[in-house]
Amino acid sequence: MITLSSDFGWPYPASMKGVILQETNARLVDVSHEFPRQDVRATAFWLREVLPYFPPAVHLVVVDPGVGTERAAIAVRAGDHALVGPDNGVLLPVARTLSEGFLDVFEVSYEEPAPGERNEDGRWPPVAESSTFHGRDVFAPAAARVHERGIEDFEDQPGFARADDYETLQFPEPTVDEDGAVGEAITVDGFGNVITNIPGEVLAERFGSHVKANGIWASARRAYAEVDVGHRVVTVGSHGNVELAVNQGRGDETFGVDAGGRVRLSW
Amino acid sequence: MITLSSDFGWPYPASMKGVILQETNARLVDVSHEFPRQDVRATAFWLREVLPYFPPAVHLVVVDPGVGTERAAIAVRAGDHALVGPDNGVLLPVARTLSEGFLDVFEVSYEEPAPGERNEDGRWPPVAESSTFHGRDVFAPAAARVHERGIEDFEDQPGFARADDYETLQFPEPTVDEDGAVGEAITVDGFGNVITNIPGEVLAERFGSHVKANGIWASARRAYAEVDVGHRVVTVGSHGNVELAVNQGRGDETFGVDAGGRVRLSW
Amino acid sequence: MITLSSDFGWPYPASMKGVILQETNARLVDVSHEFPRQDVRATAFWLREVLPYFPPAVHLVVVDPGVGTERAAIAVRAGDHALVGPDNGVLLPVARTLSEGFLDVFEVSYEEPAPGERNEDGRWPPVAESSTFHGRDVFAPAAARVHERGIEDFEDQPGFARADDYETLQFPEPTVDEDGAVGEAITVDGFGNVITNIPGEVLAERFGSHVKANGIWASARRAYAEVDVGHRVVTVGSHGNVELAVNQGRGDETFGVDAGGRVRLSW
Repeated sequence: MITLSSDFGWPYPASMKGVILQETNARLVDVSHEFPRQDVRATAFWLREVLPYFPPAVHLVVVDPGVGTERAAIAVRAGDHALVGPDNGVLLPVARTLSEGFLDVFEVSYEEPAPGERNEDGRWPPVAESSTFHGRDVFAPAAARVHERGIEDFEDQPGFARADDYETLQFPEPTVDEDGAVGEAITVDGFGNVITNIPGEVLAERFGSHVKANGIWASARRAYAEVDVGHRVVTVGSHGNVELAVNQGRGDETFGVDAGGRVRLSW
Repeated sequence: MITLSSDFGWPYPASMKGVILQETNARLVDVSHEFPRQDVRATAFWLREVLPYFPPAVHLVVVDPGVGTERAAIAVRAGDHALVGPDNGVLLPVARTLSEGFLDVFEVSYEEPAPGERNEDGRWPPVAESSTFHGRDVFAPAAARVHERGIEDFEDQPGFARADDYETLQFPEPTVDEDGAVGEAITVDGFGNVITNIPGEVLAERFGSHVKANGIWASARRAYAEVDVGHRVVTVGSHGNVELAVNQGRGDETFGVDAGGRVRLSW
Repeated sequence: MITLSSDFGWPYPASMKGVILQETNARLVDVSHEFPRQDVRATAFWLREVLPYFPPAVHLVVVDPGVGTERAAIAVRAGDHALVGPDNGVLLPVARTLSEGFLDVFEVSYEEPAPGERNEDGRWPPVAESSTFHGRDVFAPAAARVHERGIEDFEDQPGFARADDYETLQFPEPTVDEDGAVGEAITVDGFGNVITNIPGEVLAERFGSHVKANGIWASARRAYAEVDVGHRVVTVGSHGNVELAVNQGRGDETFGVDAGGRVRLSW
């Protein structure tokens, strides 16, 4: 199984699928191609939430604002899973979760054959590696090769070399005290729910009462629908973090917070 | 085969797919994850239009404004198909169509193992059932279990109990008279076509002439392209109901009608 | 393998999938259902970029502003691939690329059984061929039949007749001279990159310097990220054509060009 995650929208993910299906009969599963454009941190957050629900798989991830620069391509073995993507930190939080901290990281030096070289058998279009679409030209072939060789020892083939050094990514740490907590909006989901880095435990004992989020009073509840439609609710999302929401409305607009914004909870 | 329908956008559907693929090798087919947010009636309408085209399958549906409240989870056997989703009426119109009226409805009491319980085999992340994401924690596992046990007798396992009572959903009835019809906009599709509850037969004998929709003259035609680009056309959609449209334009804006709005056809 | 391409958004593609899965167990791969609405030329451009990356497959394409009119349905054998869609030119550019110029084009006269006829076995909903949704009622069944019979000789069954005549589609030719080039914006991708018909070779020797696009100075570079975030860059996209872009921003807004607009490069 190979999952695909990107910020490509359409139609670029299809090119990656075509390339992969030239090499493997693996099941392909789209995670999303609507990750916030070039937002490495928000994508890393979502991947950490979503990918652990999958059975062992190769996860191809392309959110890559540095495409065409010197940043490397990497493949990571993390527990029963493997991840393939750019060396910009996006793979690291989920890799740590999947592996319980022990990672094998490899640099991918595999390159597509030059134009013409492969074209003889008629299977590959005569396109050189582009400097704008490494998802198709570098990462997708690498994911296919990891899958075909197997997650356990994919590095035993040309094109994979142990990486001594790679980019990491840490989510910012919230500050919790007696009066509340100060954190940050990691991302906003499609419903408009503002997802913070503040752990849900902070809110748990406040359920049933009211709290302030950036100075705005709201009900603290276990579920959105425990307040009336259109009312503000601070809750704990499925990821375990505090969310600012409006029942059947948009929390981001009501609380005036976007991804990256400061969130202060108080009571 | 398991189909998936929700109003989740991204990336939540992927978590459901991961959970399902832990339990089954079934083919997964996305119906849509862009159903109008928390609009149970519009989703019910679309499911009734789309799902009957599928071969026998388990259909997972999560449009669930009441998530985290006391509303039950249900599984419905309808002909050769099964449907799994919240007990809010969303499954009922399509279930009636698929079954020709005879339904078996079961309440789902299945719950995910508590955190840690299942974690020993390393396959399941240590996340408790959330009160915000029953799609992942309740409905997806239930759909996988219905599929694995089989549509014919899935209830012969723990976690399914015959439901004595469940929510239904009726679409509003239009009024048809000699001078026209009065109905309602059920939903607006992505093209901007306003889909009403007025049956197409009302319009059939007017094809080739003009009719008024909410007082605005338009051509009554069998196909959008029978009028010039940008011109108003009242037609019969693939679902058999009257649509207000503009050839290569947006009917909702031109006729000033949104989902839920009143539509009066006259001549 | 059957790929699906359309401008349908949701939920119409699911009806096509259901119809196909009634007839075949083929792998289904979505190319995109977000092609620019009723824009035959932009879709033709993208298909030519994307489909050659696939292994041999049947490609179902429904961007069909003339639905319900007299335009024919066609099936094209192009090399190891087959394409099914409306006779409006959308299939031709990619077909020429896949076949290296030699095409077999067939008109599809296959029609769904009338209501009731097929309904006896309970598998097919009693819906007549609509005049608004040929994707479901004409093209999807035809694609399934091409796949089941085989790309090599699908025409040896009822419903396919060699077409003497069919629509073609040519992209506009740019003008290149010593001072630059004049071309056209073929389409804008989801990132806001303006994709022109000007060949990348024109720009290659300018990399590292500055050029003017519609009178606006910008850096000519191999990769978006070779300029600072928010800066203008004229580059060569993965398709080999000149793109007007902004690193992590929108080129269409910055350069004031939409699909169909004139693009003048100069130096």
